[in-house]
Amino acid sequence: MMQNFELTILGCGSATPTSNRNPTAQLLNVAERFFLIDCGEATQIQLRRFKLKFQRINHIFISHLHGDHYLGLVGLISSMHLLGRTFDLNIYCPPELKEIIDIQLKHSQTYLKYNIIYHFHTYQNNVLLFEDDKVEVRTIVLNHRIPCCGFLFKEKPLLASILKNKIEQFKIPLEQIVDIKSGADFITESGEVIPNNKLVTNKIKPRSYAYCSDTCYDERIIEHLQGVNLLYHEATFMHDMLPRAKETFHSTTLQAATIAQKAEVKTLMIGHYSARYKDLQPLLEEAKTVFDNTILAVEGESIRLNFETE
Amino acid sequence: MMQNFELTILGCGSATPTSNRNPTAQLLNVAERFFLIDCGEATQIQLRRFKLKFQRINHIFISHLHGDHYLGLVGLISSMHLLGRTFDLNIYCPPELKEIIDIQLKHSQTYLKYNIIYHFHTYQNNVLLFEDDKVEVRTIVLNHRIPCCGFLFKEKPLLASILKNKIEQFKIPLEQIVDIKSGADFITESGEVIPNNKLVTNKIKPRSYAYCSDTCYDERIIEHLQGVNLLYHEATFMHDMLPRAKETFHSTTLQAATIAQKAEVKTLMIGHYSARYKDLQPLLEEAKTVFDNTILAVEGESIRLNFETE
Repeated sequence: MMQNFELTILGCGSATPTSNRNPTAQLLNVAERFFLIDCGEATQIQLRRFKLKFQRINHIFISHLHGDHYLGLVGLISSMHLLGRTFDLNIYCPPELKEIIDIQLKHSQTYLKYNIIYHFHTYQNNVLLFEDDKVEVRTIVLNHRIPCCGFLFKEKPLLASILKNKIEQFKIPLEQIVDIKSGADFITESGEVIPNNKLVTNKIKPRSYAYCSDTCYDERIIEHLQGVNLLYHEATFMHDMLPRAKETFHSTTLQAATIAQKAEVKTLMIGHYSARYKDLQPLLEEAKTVFDNTILAVEGESIRLNFETE
Repeated sequence: MMQNFELTILGCGSATPTSNRNPTAQLLNVAERFFLIDCGEATQIQLRRFKLKFQRINHIFISHLHGDHYLGLVGLISSMHLLGRTFDLNIYCPPELKEIIDIQLKHSQTYLKYNIIYHFHTYQNNVLLFEDDKVEVRTIVLNHRIPCCGFLFKEKPLLASILKNKIEQFKIPLEQIVDIKSGADFITESGEVIPNNKLVTNKIKPRSYAYCSDTCYDERIIEHLQGVNLLYHEATFMHDMLPRAKETFHSTTLQAATIAQKAEVKTLMIGHYSARYKDLQPLLEEAKTVFDNTILAVEGESIRLNFETE
């Protein structure tokens, strides 16, 4: 069974919520590690609504301190506490967020039964925020009105399948199998080097997800997005609103699609839609004129990234 | 046309939200003055959902600083700003709330285009918080884990209707009619005193709404609730959970009903239900065993207080 790499959209709206779009929040499951990415108001309600267990979230990534990206955090922290959480919660965020959380816990006289471990943004690219045996998370510096950080989630290289008949043919000992699955060549008793690609099948490419919200059009991010399986890039406006996009340090559909095209990503997901758009199809169609493999972020919907063999 | 006195429930749950119950928030309309009472997370989303115009809210009353009563406030303040508000917003709240709001506006670099005028709780009873020609609002000190303030909304005395035939019979001059409608007697040219109740009909009793959340059972509030048309009193638990209610400074259904009975209110509305209760009928039935005229707070539902003549 292939490990999961699945993104669920909890909120896809921008700053002023509409009756059917919540502010930004996403839940990423990589191999049963649950990463919450931004946490707009009512995120805990959305998690409930979509029956996602929020106590399984151990890592929360906050891009920046505009309310539509973090106002749901204190409520979530508080509910985790009320429901008996005792294990650590990691928050990757701007340093000022700690102050905002602390003052609210203080005035509500809430003494958490678990620890929050803060990891503050330094606003440099490619900083390793998190890593374990399955996944790593790195920073992507975005360009917004206030300091803002995107995130790149990347699966660790996965083991290939070893060909059974080759084990017999070359008499490969048990203790070398993991090395070969990880990419090693095999040297036979007679000294012959059997290259790895002769021994394995299904060499799986690690999957990756890049999260870019909020940001104006900025080509400096492209090098960090090169070839990712899924890119989420905000598209607050349609392209006729370019002046407004520039003024507010947001992007248009065409700009998001241009970034996707230049970074040669597999799939682009747009979101952070302005409340002015009731129907999202025109945004999708406009983006597709530049980058065909574009999809819309839709609340409650999940996208599962399929693996590809090399 | 009688002026409005209508309460709409935006959230009726307690601290941990469920998928179908939001934390506490209510909107009270008295003669087209819109008062927001508490502002739990996602209140602005609820306002949108129920198509209530939130720019008409000029007065927000926050009872206390547990998150389920105020976490929606910064989002609402921010959206009011983004949607172009320029007129003052009054907030009646614990003094610490200003600090919580200020730090968040500062770190999001939000410079409001309107003023917030704060009115801080002093936690004394019967303090006049707001008054105009139609309505007044006073404090009710509640008894909770942290300082907590309830609110009593009371219509100003309304003008009665003057009997047309009496105007003719006693030759009442035009300039005295408002005084008589307001309760004055009339003195005829010959010096005869005609008592007010002979001259008017439909003497309307001012309507009143008392909001009590969160609080443990405390009989000291009864004197302030005497005879109100509608009392909202929290009933977080059914009565078998009395020890838990005491421990958390909340009330049970029977306790809320007992307060209603002793204060001789017309209608009791219960709410702030613990997330453990999926079906609310048992709470209603239990409360009714003590106070029959009990109703449930239900999100999206409104109760309009009818006027009564004396």
